[in-house]
Amino acid sequence: MVNQVQRVEDTWRTCSKSDSSGASNSGCESSKESSRSSTPVLDTDRTDRLREKMRRRTESGDHWFSLEFFPPRTASGAVNLISRFDRMGSGGPLFIDVTWHPAGDPGSDKETSSMMIASTAVNYCGLESILHLTCCNQTKEKITGYLSKAKHLGLKNIMALRGDPMGADWEEEDAGFNYATDLVKHIRCEFDDYFDICVAGYPTGHPEAESYDEDLRHLKEKVDAGADFIITQLFFRADTFLKFVRDCRAIGITCPILPGIFPIQGYQSLRQLVKLSKLEVPEEIMRVIEPIKDNDAAIRNYGIEQAVGMCRVLLESGEVPGLHFYTLNREVATMEVLRQLGLWIEDPRRTLPWAVSAHPKRKVEDVRPIFWASRPKSYIYRTQDWDDFPNGRWGNSSSPAFGELNDYYLFYLKSKSSKDALLKMWGEELTSEQSVYEVFTSYITAQPNVAGHKVMCLPWNDDPLAPETNLLKDELDKVNRRGVLTINSQPSINGKPSSDPIVGWGPPGGYVFQKAYLEFFTSSENVTALLKVLKKYEPRVNYHIVNVHGQNTTNAHDMQPNAVTWGIFPGREIVQPTVVDPVSFLYWKDEAFALWIEQWAKLYEDESPSRMIIKYIHDNYFLVNLVDNDFPLDNCLWQVIDDMFELLDNPPEEQPAEQPAEQPNDEQSDKEQPGK
Amino acid sequence: MVNQVQRVEDTWRTCSKSDSSGASNSGCESSKESSRSSTPVLDTDRTDRLREKMRRRTESGDHWFSLEFFPPRTASGAVNLISRFDRMGSGGPLFIDVTWHPAGDPGSDKETSSMMIASTAVNYCGLESILHLTCCNQTKEKITGYLSKAKHLGLKNIMALRGDPMGADWEEEDAGFNYATDLVKHIRCEFDDYFDICVAGYPTGHPEAESYDEDLRHLKEKVDAGADFIITQLFFRADTFLKFVRDCRAIGITCPILPGIFPIQGYQSLRQLVKLSKLEVPEEIMRVIEPIKDNDAAIRNYGIEQAVGMCRVLLESGEVPGLHFYTLNREVATMEVLRQLGLWIEDPRRTLPWAVSAHPKRKVEDVRPIFWASRPKSYIYRTQDWDDFPNGRWGNSSSPAFGELNDYYLFYLKSKSSKDALLKMWGEELTSEQSVYEVFTSYITAQPNVAGHKVMCLPWNDDPLAPETNLLKDELDKVNRRGVLTINSQPSINGKPSSDPIVGWGPPGGYVFQKAYLEFFTSSENVTALLKVLKKYEPRVNYHIVNVHGQNTTNAHDMQPNAVTWGIFPGREIVQPTVVDPVSFLYWKDEAFALWIEQWAKLYEDESPSRMIIKYIHDNYFLVNLVDNDFPLDNCLWQVIDDMFELLDNPPEEQPAEQPAEQPNDEQSDKEQPGK
Repeated sequence: MVNQVQRVEDTWRTCSKSDSSGASNSGCESSKESSRSSTPVLDTDRTDRLREKMRRRTESGDHWFSLEFFPPRTASGAVNLISRFDRMGSGGPLFIDVTWHPAGDPGSDKETSSMMIASTAVNYCGLESILHLTCCNQTKEKITGYLSKAKHLGLKNIMALRGDPMGADWEEEDAGFNYATDLVKHIRCEFDDYFDICVAGYPTGHPEAESYDEDLRHLKEKVDAGADFIITQLFFRADTFLKFVRDCRAIGITCPILPGIFPIQGYQSLRQLVKLSKLEVPEEIMRVIEPIKDNDAAIRNYGIEQAVGMCRVLLESGEVPGLHFYTLNREVATMEVLRQLGLWIEDPRRTLPWAVSAHPKRKVEDVRPIFWASRPKSYIYRTQDWDDFPNGRWGNSSSPAFGELNDYYLFYLKSKSSKDALLKMWGEELTSEQSVYEVFTSYITAQPNVAGHKVMCLPWNDDPLAPETNLLKDELDKVNRRGVLTINSQPSINGKPSSDPIVGWGPPGGYVFQKAYLEFFTSSENVTALLKVLKKYEPRVNYHIVNVHGQNTTNAHDMQPNAVTWGIFPGREIVQPTVVDPVSFLYWKDEAFALWIEQWAKLYEDESPSRMIIKYIHDNYFLVNLVDNDFPLDNCLWQVIDDMFELLDNPPEEQPAEQPAEQPNDEQSDKEQPGK
Repeated sequence: MVNQVQRVEDTWRTCSKSDSSGASNSGCESSKESSRSSTPVLDTDRTDRLREKMRRRTESGDHWFSLEFFPPRTASGAVNLISRFDRMGSGGPLFIDVTWHPAGDPGSDKETSSMMIASTAVNYCGLESILHLTCCNQTKEKITGYLSKAKHLGLKNIMALRGDPMGADWEEEDAGFNYATDLVKHIRCEFDDYFDICVAGYPTGHPEAESYDEDLRHLKEKVDAGADFIITQLFFRADTFLKFVRDCRAIGITCPILPGIFPIQGYQSLRQLVKLSKLEVPEEIMRVIEPIKDNDAAIRNYGIEQAVGMCRVLLESGEVPGLHFYTLNREVATMEVLRQLGLWIEDPRRTLPWAVSAHPKRKVEDVRPIFWASRPKSYIYRTQDWDDFPNGRWGNSSSPAFGELNDYYLFYLKSKSSKDALLKMWGEELTSEQSVYEVFTSYITAQPNVAGHKVMCLPWNDDPLAPETNLLKDELDKVNRRGVLTINSQPSINGKPSSDPIVGWGPPGGYVFQKAYLEFFTSSENVTALLKVLKKYEPRVNYHIVNVHGQNTTNAHDMQPNAVTWGIFPGREIVQPTVVDPVSFLYWKDEAFALWIEQWAKLYEDESPSRMIIKYIHDNYFLVNLVDNDFPLDNCLWQVIDDMFELLDNPPEEQPAEQPAEQPNDEQSDKEQPGK
């Protein structure tokens, strides 16, 4: 028997060792030395650097796409571009890149600078981003300064370009940057392996190069100097690119080469681009376009068809792991091409229930207070100076304070709507608190307000209601009509699959859970009744009630956070990405109250009745949040509000003898002191 | 309307501010500064120091008890005392104390020393403990050395005593310790506020004191020097104690005074104690005892009745927050008195699913690998040198290594059974692997083995099966018979109330969850079949399979821990106290395999067939753990084992043409490499 067992084991041992597909048979003890990550890694895309992501996707044969944008010229253009990042980011690009406009103060803190746009994409939109950088006519100090700033802002990828010389009298400088190769060398010299570096390839040769072969040798130099991958200039025939790749491989360029795809979107833009890039448009394309040059729709449709056809050939060649799109900051054509190619992700899986940031120091961020659920950019902004992100539980005693939010002018914190549009939605003239309630009700129900305008946003929610909140619509409608002005809520979830289209998040095979949550502004009259009612719901319901002056009532246990969203996944630790945290609630309170004034009251004249009404609410209402801890049972929070209304509608008759026992004093006797 | 709202709010505000019962109305912003704990505090008893616990219990009118023990004389006495600590600890003493025996090398590392016994109580039994310390005839350096050692071992409470002078020629020393007061002062001087200090009170005056009043003044000095509370010498009449308390209060002693209760347990022990303590036994007691002095049971019954009566008077007086018992290291009488008083906790609530340690640095410990579930003292021992305990997730990449476990002789790691008893349980002579299987089966089923002896323990489980494991008894029985030698398991739990008597833990109002877990030794033949079967259960089942040489196969994701026990509680973050951790499994593996040899094989002669059989299993079997991640569904792990047996019983016919596809090589193709 002994021999037989031995034999079987040996077979198995040998076989598993010879398995080349990543089988898990380790040598003796070797895995004892393995390091462990401090948080469950739900998505390796969040932690890998760009070149690793490419490698993994290439190895698995999983095609990707990426998107190129240029910085906007105006502040409102910046607002639009950022919301375009959010929309196009949802389709799942592997990265985006932002071009460098030497004439536009590209490294400045202006909201339209290349640096700021790329930083916003990384930090606030969670997009892996490449910042272009041109070196022509720049000193080494200046370039190092740009790179240091980029690194500080969380940028990790640089597209190293020579750029076009400014003025006609450009000459090679001995100590300066003459070629992109010099820039690549400089980045590697000064920043070692910190940045992933991309360089440009020219499928038909660089217009200034002596020859195609000469240009290929230059490209080889750039790669040898430390570039990680190549993105090509646009081209119009698949063959052009495929020949270029073959030629690159022939001279020993082994890194990824991504084709630059330009869906033709209009006659003028095509002419302009061709002029700038000194490319020739093939005759077969010109023959189609010339006759329809005044029909924008027809040209765009042709451009889509042409791009899709070319991309199919490229992908089928096996030489192309991913496609890079020159979007010209437009959405429609590129998205349509990607949809037809099946590369656009229609229903992106969420890694976590909130939008992650791509800043390297936030890679381990795995928990946030629920309060900023509709204002994630504000949360990121107010915590941008934190050095560490809570990597286990959120409530580290050493957590730094939140930054002040006075910068409502910042383009990523601004409403997408104009003042005019906001006045139409929120009322040109308010006559009472009731007219404020009606704005909330219109927003919740998506019904037009009295003036016939749909309310698409509120100061606390710049977007229409989330699908999840829609589940609660009828209840929300009912309570907002009576002055329970809801700004955040979630239903209870008792173990839905992580693949659930509405409430799911995280890797497959898991289960997600939520405690019901409701947050609203309401009058102090209502709060007085609410506190009486809440006594019946101890300890099932946790609450925090605070006014603008910071007068705060809570039954939170020892000021500990309450996890209200969590997920259980195969082979992982518990993930609890959303908490109701008593400490951060007081920072959120400042912001939530300030939004009444900054975004709403200031729409009206000083001293106007409309402004006074908002000001009155700001000064006198309370911000309330409620959590129903009993997630397996039906959400009781609506019953709490109903009970409050019931108490207000039918106050108990005065019973003079027993009156002392009815005082709020006693009603609150079992609450705990915050911070005790 | 504005005025009305204002009024209501003001009423509420005023009332809540005047609430003296800990209502939660904070001033403006004040709670922003509150610190937060880094882990959810499930039990403040775990973090508070002893005097705080007393204060809280006293304020809430919640009576407590405490237990005094003396160090044993022999090593086997130490093993017995430690298991007595575990049994008596389950009744819920607020603390225990261990007396100081100057003649017994009390500060040494001997397993019978006062220091080691108190340290074991704290570290391994999780008991809040007071170490007695006498200063008479000691140098300051010696005393400071003892205190430093105590602090290092995690002891936080000292009973400061003068002690009896050794020899008759004791005289006051100018520079030495003459009274307990000197010791109290010394502790406060050298260790500031680190220790809680207890001192002794003498209800009838210290036998050596000039007078009762003189003795009271000494007591006042001890308290003024920094003592936190008083435990009294034993007494026989409630009045004696109550008068003493009144007299203490009259001279300004305000700290807690705990009565020392001595249930009379036998005639001889009473006589001896009375002689030592120079107390007089009241006539009414002697009158009862003398006639029954040869009837131990009768005396013990009387002692219980007498103690219960006296304790009732004390507790009803309102002067006594807690009772201190002189146990004489015996269980029955004290437990009976406590049961009759209703102070013994019959069904202790578990803070966490495992037994916590009371060492200060382990207060934040909130997660452990499941492997040591039946060997918690070994886990504590092997991690005793860790500086930090995982306070968020368990898998910190910087986690220190486990200590080696070579110290099987340590009294808290020893089996409670003698070699003889073990041989009876595990077989005087083994004839085959099958006879080993039968030992496991007898243990699981609690049926006698072939020799007619019940198997009460196994090398991996020193206690009979846990109630929770009993839930799985039938299945365990079935698989052990066929050589799946189970050493650890838990059923899946999908949200049972935290108050559940079998699987519940943590604060009330919560829900506990578990993933099903099964750990066993089995032959490599079985493992080969198991690996084929497990392919069908991807990714539902996570597994780790390792042999004594460290050959390790797993499908664990990136070597991350898998949470297998967690709890959701009102107003708190998620608690996940038990994980299956790939890294620590390899340390556990060493211990689990070594126990075959150290505890079982070594019972037999070198080269004996019995020893060779155990040795064969040790050298050739695999240790396997399985987790069913789909906790809401029925546990599939039994089906996995059934499938394995099915495959072994009915191997698929050889199909030469397709044979390569049947090789283990391919069977493992989707597994991941540990440590990659």
